[in-house]
Amino acid sequence: MTTRTVLITGSTSGIGLGIARSFARAKYNIIFNGLEKNGSELAAGIANEFQVGHLYSPANALDSNQLRTMVDEGLQKFKHIDVLINNCGIQHVAPIENFPDDKWADILRINLTSAFILTKALLKPMKENKFGRIINVASAHGLFASEYKSAYVAAKHGILGLTKVTALEGAPFNINCNAICPGYVRTPLVDGQIRDQAKSHDISESEVIPRVILQKQAVKKFVPIELIGKLALLLADEQSATL
Amino acid sequence: MTTRTVLITGSTSGIGLGIARSFARAKYNIIFNGLEKNGSELAAGIANEFQVGHLYSPANALDSNQLRTMVDEGLQKFKHIDVLINNCGIQHVAPIENFPDDKWADILRINLTSAFILTKALLKPMKENKFGRIINVASAHGLFASEYKSAYVAAKHGILGLTKVTALEGAPFNINCNAICPGYVRTPLVDGQIRDQAKSHDISESEVIPRVILQKQAVKKFVPIELIGKLALLLADEQSATL
Amino acid sequence: MTTRTVLITGSTSGIGLGIARSFARAKYNIIFNGLEKNGSELAAGIANEFQVGHLYSPANALDSNQLRTMVDEGLQKFKHIDVLINNCGIQHVAPIENFPDDKWADILRINLTSAFILTKALLKPMKENKFGRIINVASAHGLFASEYKSAYVAAKHGILGLTKVTALEGAPFNINCNAICPGYVRTPLVDGQIRDQAKSHDISESEVIPRVILQKQAVKKFVPIELIGKLALLLADEQSATL
Amino acid sequence: MTTRTVLITGSTSGIGLGIARSFARAKYNIIFNGLEKNGSELAAGIANEFQVGHLYSPANALDSNQLRTMVDEGLQKFKHIDVLINNCGIQHVAPIENFPDDKWADILRINLTSAFILTKALLKPMKENKFGRIINVASAHGLFASEYKSAYVAAKHGILGLTKVTALEGAPFNINCNAICPGYVRTPLVDGQIRDQAKSHDISESEVIPRVILQKQAVKKFVPIELIGKLALLLADEQSATL
Repeated sequence: MTTRTVLITGSTSGIGLGIARSFARAKYNIIFNGLEKNGSELAAGIANEFQVGHLYSPANALDSNQLRTMVDEGLQKFKHIDVLINNCGIQHVAPIENFPDDKWADILRINLTSAFILTKALLKPMKENKFGRIINVASAHGLFASEYKSAYVAAKHGILGLTKVTALEGAPFNINCNAICPGYVRTPLVDGQIRDQAKSHDISESEVIPRVILQKQAVKKFVPIELIGKLALLLADEQSATL
Repeated sequence: MTTRTVLITGSTSGIGLGIARSFARAKYNIIFNGLEKNGSELAAGIANEFQVGHLYSPANALDSNQLRTMVDEGLQKFKHIDVLINNCGIQHVAPIENFPDDKWADILRINLTSAFILTKALLKPMKENKFGRIINVASAHGLFASEYKSAYVAAKHGILGLTKVTALEGAPFNINCNAICPGYVRTPLVDGQIRDQAKSHDISESEVIPRVILQKQAVKKFVPIELIGKLALLLADEQSATL
Repeated sequence: MTTRTVLITGSTSGIGLGIARSFARAKYNIIFNGLEKNGSELAAGIANEFQVGHLYSPANALDSNQLRTMVDEGLQKFKHIDVLINNCGIQHVAPIENFPDDKWADILRINLTSAFILTKALLKPMKENKFGRIINVASAHGLFASEYKSAYVAAKHGILGLTKVTALEGAPFNINCNAICPGYVRTPLVDGQIRDQAKSHDISESEVIPRVILQKQAVKKFVPIELIGKLALLLADEQSATL
Repeated sequence: MTTRTVLITGSTSGIGLGIARSFARAKYNIIFNGLEKNGSELAAGIANEFQVGHLYSPANALDSNQLRTMVDEGLQKFKHIDVLINNCGIQHVAPIENFPDDKWADILRINLTSAFILTKALLKPMKENKFGRIINVASAHGLFASEYKSAYVAAKHGILGLTKVTALEGAPFNINCNAICPGYVRTPLVDGQIRDQAKSHDISESEVIPRVILQKQAVKKFVPIELIGKLALLLADEQSATL
């Protein structure tokens, strides 16, 4: 069987990077994307470690043209892109009445519109290949809400809507589309929150995790990144058309 | 009791107009909004018929500044705006791979971002009044998907997310926030669809309604606009804080 | 228009009693049901206060034959039963590993199976009348879960399933079916919980309400029974076929 | 690592049998259960093929004592039961007004109460082991409804409720609980439906599958049993506590 290629947005850090490692281990070619300064070296390092083909694109998710260029470069290099993982996202926390208009707009564009742009760019070649797997990394906030996260919750609910439409339109062409809605994953971003919250509550970091950070989660553990990788690999599988 | 004031976007036609009539009948002052050329006369006519105060604003939902100006004018005239009904919306139907970027962006801005902008503008005065009722007119597409309506479904799912966050943030201040998710309502827009579909399927208009237009609805009837008005009035009621 | 008749299970106390008052005020004939010793006097008193017809049945929700007899008596007296409100329910709180088998069975029978038995008994005459309104009083626990309430949560989720099937089967016959999922309502049952929790937490009753009883609710108020009555009246309305 | 043991109800045919094969391949000891006459040989055959330990129990899901005896025998033989898969189920299709009371009761007992009885029997030993994985095989009907399947839809919605309560109660003890909600799987039962529907619609079996059997599914393919097995294995994994 020919080697499959996956494009993962926001894959030079956090969850996206973890998913990229899982797919590299499973011998997929990886199209990396992210704004980290060392993105290029990071991508090359993983590709080298697992001996897979790769491409690194610093496309900014705010810029549809850069996203389309990334797809074109990927298709040129690998002939087909079989799996699209829309993972990139930013967060901003503020009460609605103080929530900056531009933060709202950026969150919708990065967390939601970029997924539309990439799905639009890839649906046609995927239909021609009669194969495609699209995975949108939503969040528990795709289903539930928290105070002060209006833009994030709206964008993540929105991407669940996009996921369902993509699934319906892709179904006759062996293209599935799913959303993953994880709880808290321990990323560098969350590490910072732990330190800040421990300080402001004046308790130890080991206490702040179950009592503050994971307070709303029944399971007082972070979701391991490897688990999200495994789930994504299952959704991307040849035999997972009906997932 | 002092007279309550309601602001309804997109209230010079279709569902919004129907809701405005229901609130006028219930003696609310109405802030009308819409781009219809005869919007001003239409608004004055209803206000006159039911003997209520009114304001008409042609604010364009694409322009946040125009929306804010409408709120300012409303607050100046009526002192407080007690009920906000985010109803305005547009639709565009196309497969994802042909869906124009600018249609996607406009639908997100008109159907979702305008609700954020107005909620943001009104939450502070509502908190000060310890009273507010916010109603987002979503659609069955806030919960389910249809092919070829990616932007609409994403925006309507998104507004359900915004609704939940607004409800959480408003709860301590006697501000509720709910979404209404109706099926098909017979509006001038739908009348056009009926004619078109009857022609293209070569069947009568009375057949095209249950078999094509309402095919996915269990109840083969249009939702009466008056019913949406009644539901909105119940959600807006003084005693409906826990709805 | 002819007078409508409503049958409400568990209507001699709590939420059911409140709904009965709302429907009596709206001039419905009421078929009362409940095991309270003074049920008969209570029913007569309300019927007298609002000058409506009534019937009182002490049918035990555990006994399908008694439920069917109640329907027969109701149909004989009022010719048609237009609205069915499945409201009766019991609760038991225990960890799953200690949850008594017979409590589980009783909760399923009272909170779920009784609704099936009555829906089954009334669907045929409702279809013949081309009119019916069925309202299942579920609970927030029809959608979400709490620890130690396995049977209640399973029964309430189950009744949401039954609601959807009834809605589909009733749709062509002008029969709608809806579930109401309220948060906490202040009933005699809850009064007891407030006293107990205040004692065990050693805080005042006014503190125990927001901090313990309503801890999971965003709105720290009990749902007023009148509000549930209003909502039920709207769902039961002639013009609410599409609700 | 010590060998894990899984108990799967209804595992001598259909989906349960497929799941059993997947877990046997992954080297779990299997406790088989089912009423098939050749259940004992079938179980022994799989255990032999994959060289794993096994037990076969003909416990009838209608009889709580037989279910408890099965658990006791399993615990005696394998010391711990690490994974419980509540899979057994029956179906009956009829309009609500003709739906036999005893079919309703049996479906609730087999499809829902048996899961409660087994969860109750195993939660305590799982808590002591600080490990447990409980998987409830629901169905798309745990989330959506179809006409004429009132009991099945109610039971499957109910098991989603039980799943959520079990997940909450199990969370502090490294016990997860999830539901799998597949669409149509091709089992001997469905084979019969295909033949019947093809005959009654007078079309070929290959036409009847997409147009009738899978009419409501966007993906016009049966869900492969192996896929359900893979998903169950992922949910049962050591590292899947947060799933």
